[in-house]
Amino acid sequence: MKYGVAIFPTKKLQDLANSYRKRYDTKYAFIPPHLTLKPTFEATDMEISTIAEQLKGIAQKCRPFTMNVTKAKSFQPVSNTIYFKVELSEGLQELHDALNDESFIISENEHAFVPHITIAQDLSDNEHSDVLGQLSMLDVSHEEEVKRIHLLYQLEDGAWTVYETFRLGAE
Amino acid sequence: MKYGVAIFPTKKLQDLANSYRKRYDTKYAFIPPHLTLKPTFEATDMEISTIAEQLKGIAQKCRPFTMNVTKAKSFQPVSNTIYFKVELSEGLQELHDALNDESFIISENEHAFVPHITIAQDLSDNEHSDVLGQLSMLDVSHEEEVKRIHLLYQLEDGAWTVYETFRLGAE
Repeated sequence: MKYGVAIFPTKKLQDLANSYRKRYDTKYAFIPPHLTLKPTFEATDMEISTIAEQLKGIAQKCRPFTMNVTKAKSFQPVSNTIYFKVELSEGLQELHDALNDESFIISENEHAFVPHITIAQDLSDNEHSDVLGQLSMLDVSHEEEVKRIHLLYQLEDGAWTVYETFRLGAE
Repeated sequence: MKYGVAIFPTKKLQDLANSYRKRYDTKYAFIPPHLTLKPTFEATDMEISTIAEQLKGIAQKCRPFTMNVTKAKSFQPVSNTIYFKVELSEGLQELHDALNDESFIISENEHAFVPHITIAQDLSDNEHSDVLGQLSMLDVSHEEEVKRIHLLYQLEDGAWTVYETFRLGAE
């Protein structure tokens, strides 16, 4: 079964992201707006309860932190994906590193960590230019406290369900 | 902001439910297959942290229990909604009652508790007869352990996001 770890931002930012995702993100119906902390990894039903305990421990050791969203950017030329850029703070880096440490279960696709919330993907080149043009004018300055992380699993149809949440810094 | 409390069944049952929901459930893209424990209620950002603490307390006092799904049924003549019937066990009743107690925040629409996982809704009368005919032949006997409950909130576009999960019987 496929699992992943993500942050869901508050309703305010999710509503803003979804106003674009509805039209421009082919994964709109599969998962709410999110920031991926640990990309997809495989685990069995047996393994996942141990992993959930480990995640609980990792979350306890990390403190809640402030997440800053600054502007819309694109992954071009790598892909036509447009996203809200999230600033890489110390708290976010620490959390990401703990989740992607070699001693923990390894994800399938490790990339350099570019914290982001996807708002458009699988666009044609023309659409990409248009949408990025609109969005780069947009002031998306937004700040919020991140207090919890979510462990998710993927269904056969591609949609994601939350398995469990873990509070940061909780006893 | 609108909140609710639900159980998400395991992937196996969700995949089965979604194989029908994909075609017959207008809310398919808004939420994964679920059993509603506490219908929609309104709460502010301030109130929800207190409510989350109360939910944690309620979950701690309830024990994990076995959930039995038996067959597909319909809410007709009340509505053309078709669902997987979940047997009302002692553990499920206890959990439901604790979440819907008068001393706790009150939901908007209180109905008699008919535990179910919706698989089709907003069907025409003809579709309803067809789908129910197919589904009533189906053996959906399924048993699983329920170990956690989910607090969700609704986005402006109607989709639901998980706010936090709570383990049943956890310290």
